[in-house]
Amino acid sequence: MRTTLCDTLGIEHPIVGFTPSEHVAAAISRAGGLGVLGCVRFNDPDELDAALDWMDANTGGKPYGVDVVMPAKIPTEGAAVDLAEYIPPEHRDFVRRTLDELGVPELPADEQQREGVLGWLHSVARSHVDVALRHPVRLIANALGSPPVDVIEQAHQHDVLVAALAGKAEHAVRHVDNGVDIVVAQGHEAGGHTGEIASMVLVPEVVDAVGDRVPVLAAGGIGSGRQVAAALALGASGAWMGSYWLTTVEYQQIPGNSVTQQALLAAGSSDTVRSRIYTGKPARLLKTRWTDAWAVDGAPDPLPMPLQNILVSEAHQRIMRAEDPSVVSMPVGQIVGRMNEVRPVADVMADLLAELDKTITGLNDLR
Amino acid sequence: MRTTLCDTLGIEHPIVGFTPSEHVAAAISRAGGLGVLGCVRFNDPDELDAALDWMDANTGGKPYGVDVVMPAKIPTEGAAVDLAEYIPPEHRDFVRRTLDELGVPELPADEQQREGVLGWLHSVARSHVDVALRHPVRLIANALGSPPVDVIEQAHQHDVLVAALAGKAEHAVRHVDNGVDIVVAQGHEAGGHTGEIASMVLVPEVVDAVGDRVPVLAAGGIGSGRQVAAALALGASGAWMGSYWLTTVEYQQIPGNSVTQQALLAAGSSDTVRSRIYTGKPARLLKTRWTDAWAVDGAPDPLPMPLQNILVSEAHQRIMRAEDPSVVSMPVGQIVGRMNEVRPVADVMADLLAELDKTITGLNDLR
Repeated sequence: MRTTLCDTLGIEHPIVGFTPSEHVAAAISRAGGLGVLGCVRFNDPDELDAALDWMDANTGGKPYGVDVVMPAKIPTEGAAVDLAEYIPPEHRDFVRRTLDELGVPELPADEQQREGVLGWLHSVARSHVDVALRHPVRLIANALGSPPVDVIEQAHQHDVLVAALAGKAEHAVRHVDNGVDIVVAQGHEAGGHTGEIASMVLVPEVVDAVGDRVPVLAAGGIGSGRQVAAALALGASGAWMGSYWLTTVEYQQIPGNSVTQQALLAAGSSDTVRSRIYTGKPARLLKTRWTDAWAVDGAPDPLPMPLQNILVSEAHQRIMRAEDPSVVSMPVGQIVGRMNEVRPVADVMADLLAELDKTITGLNDLR
Repeated sequence: MRTTLCDTLGIEHPIVGFTPSEHVAAAISRAGGLGVLGCVRFNDPDELDAALDWMDANTGGKPYGVDVVMPAKIPTEGAAVDLAEYIPPEHRDFVRRTLDELGVPELPADEQQREGVLGWLHSVARSHVDVALRHPVRLIANALGSPPVDVIEQAHQHDVLVAALAGKAEHAVRHVDNGVDIVVAQGHEAGGHTGEIASMVLVPEVVDAVGDRVPVLAAGGIGSGRQVAAALALGASGAWMGSYWLTTVEYQQIPGNSVTQQALLAAGSSDTVRSRIYTGKPARLLKTRWTDAWAVDGAPDPLPMPLQNILVSEAHQRIMRAEDPSVVSMPVGQIVGRMNEVRPVADVMADLLAELDKTITGLNDLR
């Protein structure tokens, strides 16, 4: 199964896998897809550099990409310590009280509070790009749509392609006008930042809007070969999958992730919620006692990006250490209902491709 | 292109078309699909009887179906005049004030106020079933899921199949356990009553949950051959399409519908909203100044079914007469973004089938 995307990216199968884990990303690339490492968790560019060194040594020479979080317009920003001044005390009180009520322990005294996930800041995202371009990355994807034009030009000078997520056809066209090489049409059912329009409608709309200017990847709701076949039927050149890799064996290699996996394995497709509590922009998350607490009457409205992430940053650290699946704070799509066992990336990929082939044979036999 | 559904229903193409218009329904059946006439607008069983007489004379002997709105549990109910007592005066004031602000004229003095759309009442829906079973209908579909078991048995005694809409896999299984013959998996992107789970995730989930017990139709977001191909790839035996027929030539034959069509033709895929204001249960509607008015701070919460429909019934009559596309109150799915010209049903069907075939050829060529 080859599409134009395979040639564009130099990959074997039209499957792009987004993941916050370098172990998962490398395994996706080794399995013939394109592993895309999410950079947002790397506050320190040197940490990202080390992770990409590890990728370079562990992808078997196969291509890989990175994903940054960068608005097209460069915002006014300060250090986290300055931004924190804009957070109302009522919001801080709500978070503190909620964590107590949920039974989430305080951080140990010896664990210094980190300064939040600064990858949401433009300057940090830009440092991610600089680091990535020192490595043989094939693709830089931006979760917030088109990156600034100078970043696109910088990538192109290094012969690196740029992908951008779009939740509407008009955004996709704007991205391509800015020089983006691949559009990721992210449907409502997707995990993380997502719009209102579901994949069934969004994908052909984006495909028709960009025409043959760039390939389109379908994102949102994909975790089986039938769904990859549906994405290709809708006109996509391949699938962008994020959630589905969260229950792989390789994902367990980051400490704390097995508690997250417990929560994901138990969840059905109805157990997600689209909320602004994670970043300040609407993002689909696993529905847990943490998201429930923000949905009750009297809970404060989430703050705008990047303040909301700074507000909940310590909460996320505490939740990660709590080892309680019922309070997990985790972006995931509706496909979580199909994430019911922990398997190696290679097995996931093999099953996807086999079912994809079987599905197309089945469609053909109907005629 | 034939699936098991074609044999089950005795139709040529795996396309089932729901519509409130007998003209559209008959045209869908004549074109080789199954036209399904929505009954909810018929307060008087004799009117439905006359419409089905017309269908019998105008489907060229091809099979057709009807759609009723019937909860599985028989509710306590009274006449509209009794039920009206449960409507708070603040709600009535809000509706009256809103219509004035939107510039929607009062009904002419000589037009007597109808008693609301009583098809939402169980007793009226049951009379629809009784009328339908006196005609050669092939299918009775229920928009609210499984009808009461005695209604299913009554249909089966007349050799009529029963279909039920489902927004979750567990609902689909319950429907089949009750004796339902066909499940319609209705994704979040669909018009009218719809759940949270989008088609890309819902369809394979429902297909896997019901196994080979019954065929599954995919509903929500379908208006092109690529989308029908995607539905089949996801494991559906066919497509259930509702919105897309609203911009057909045949739909214009009901007075007032051309204003609705103007509004639909102008709308994009972002111009819908899922709201309880139409029936009391979440339903996707065209986003207009009418839906906007219910979304502002201070607007009342919609009432439960069937009170909400009684509340807005006169408003809907006034809106229908207003000839103002900007205040239309109309269920429609996100596929409205692809509804950009008025065409005959036969042309829509021919294009669907041609694109479906081309899509499967294209998928096959990728291997």
